[in-house]
Amino acid sequence: MRVARTPARARAIVRAWRAEGDSIGFVPTMGALHAGHRSLLERARRDCDRVVASIFVNPLQFGPREDLARYPRPIGADLAVLRAEKVDLLYVPFERTMYPPGFETRVAVPRTSAPMEGERRPGHFEGVATVVAKLLGAIEPDRLYLGRKDAQQAVVLRRMVADLDCGVRVVVCPTVREPDGLALSSRNAYMTADERAWAPHLYAALREAASRLRARGMSPRAAEAWLRRRLAAGPGRLDYARAVDAETLGPPARGRPILLALAYHLGRVRLIDNVLATERRAKGGARR
Amino acid sequence: MRVARTPARARAIVRAWRAEGDSIGFVPTMGALHAGHRSLLERARRDCDRVVASIFVNPLQFGPREDLARYPRPIGADLAVLRAEKVDLLYVPFERTMYPPGFETRVAVPRTSAPMEGERRPGHFEGVATVVAKLLGAIEPDRLYLGRKDAQQAVVLRRMVADLDCGVRVVVCPTVREPDGLALSSRNAYMTADERAWAPHLYAALREAASRLRARGMSPRAAEAWLRRRLAAGPGRLDYARAVDAETLGPPARGRPILLALAYHLGRVRLIDNVLATERRAKGGARR
Repeated sequence: MRVARTPARARAIVRAWRAEGDSIGFVPTMGALHAGHRSLLERARRDCDRVVASIFVNPLQFGPREDLARYPRPIGADLAVLRAEKVDLLYVPFERTMYPPGFETRVAVPRTSAPMEGERRPGHFEGVATVVAKLLGAIEPDRLYLGRKDAQQAVVLRRMVADLDCGVRVVVCPTVREPDGLALSSRNAYMTADERAWAPHLYAALREAASRLRARGMSPRAAEAWLRRRLAAGPGRLDYARAVDAETLGPPARGRPILLALAYHLGRVRLIDNVLATERRAKGGARR
Repeated sequence: MRVARTPARARAIVRAWRAEGDSIGFVPTMGALHAGHRSLLERARRDCDRVVASIFVNPLQFGPREDLARYPRPIGADLAVLRAEKVDLLYVPFERTMYPPGFETRVAVPRTSAPMEGERRPGHFEGVATVVAKLLGAIEPDRLYLGRKDAQQAVVLRRMVADLDCGVRVVVCPTVREPDGLALSSRNAYMTADERAWAPHLYAALREAASRLRARGMSPRAAEAWLRRRLAAGPGRLDYARAVDAETLGPPARGRPILLALAYHLGRVRLIDNVLATERRAKGGARR
């Protein structure tokens, strides 16, 4: 596995591969790699001749009261994962390389960034879009692999990549879960045993809401209210529960996929999760 | 000369050249090509194996009261110029290709966009940065050629290209002028004969202010005031006259290049022009 610490070095390595006709798959991460990341690397390995991963804990996407300082950085374990997954190039830039004095450019995707996570984390998606624009500038991949767990992030980045003519195909891979249904996250390690035992209720509630949307003709608004009621008695605090159009994050259009998404404060962790569903059509129930 | 109307087509053509080892020079334009554009194309022709030009009158960089509708679009004459300059590829996207329904991404370079043109034309540089990010995404050139005439635009784009790791070298070429000193501009055609006869006073005033900065120890602030007085008696209205650090557009640092820039309303035209100068150092006059 080769390692690059500057965009110029990463670009030189990737362009040499491209000159040989190789296709390039790219998996951006903040490290603390788990089976969710591994599933992205494995998909990239199947699709592409060369797999590039990046590790960069991006300060631009953390709010002032968020967990930038204590975000896990197990670089030794991460390197072992990347080697096991046969990654060809790891791009791990220095913070001062990414944001030198005088850095000022921002990439904003204002409409799809606005609801849900965007309401709770001002500036978060601007930080995500800016760093991913930089990473794509350095790597110039053919395909970008993202996890469905961060569903809004995938929508924002798909929009950015199309709008800025990046020429990258965005591949969104299924959320990887523990056997009891909890979505994998680098932040799961912060939970107590009791919190961890309760946490699968979030996915169970999302699945039941999706089933009510599909099978029983429940409206998106009613599904949101149902989720709020269902989770009101839990040990933490529901941040939001939303049913939105899966592509635009706006009001759901009849017959198109709906994203059911929530965020929940459990002890000192904020968990997010989501499922895709399709509302039953009003007349006769046929699906498009 | 080949012509592409979509980013995918342009990218495919350029990548095939790159696979053969060719270097790529890129000259973005809004058409209405004059000798200033030709000087950029000629410089790109000397530096690079392949020259790509674009023509796109970018609605995102025009304000609501600006001249988008009447901006000249002499496509036949432009094609003749591009062929004469041996351009390899013309990228001339449709507006609906550049900004389809749902388009929402913006690239902002807020600090260097703020003064001078940015104060007078809110959103202008955001429109410029966004469209150039798109053009660079489609073309992926090695070098980007810009004219010194739009000095602030060159500073903003140099900053954006560095910040987003575009891997493009920005080459800023000297302003091309009429024999009497007037900077070439597609908008010069809007002037009456009397306005055209007076217009060279702008460049003459800038040159004299630069000479006072260099040779007589005049401060940047005093040079701005001198320009305001000098142009107060003209037939139009001075919009601004500024002496700023040529790289940051902030307060001039002693011994570093200073950009003297102005905008002037003359009849229904708004003219901009600038010169580079270096302030004489306070102690002994030595230059760094």
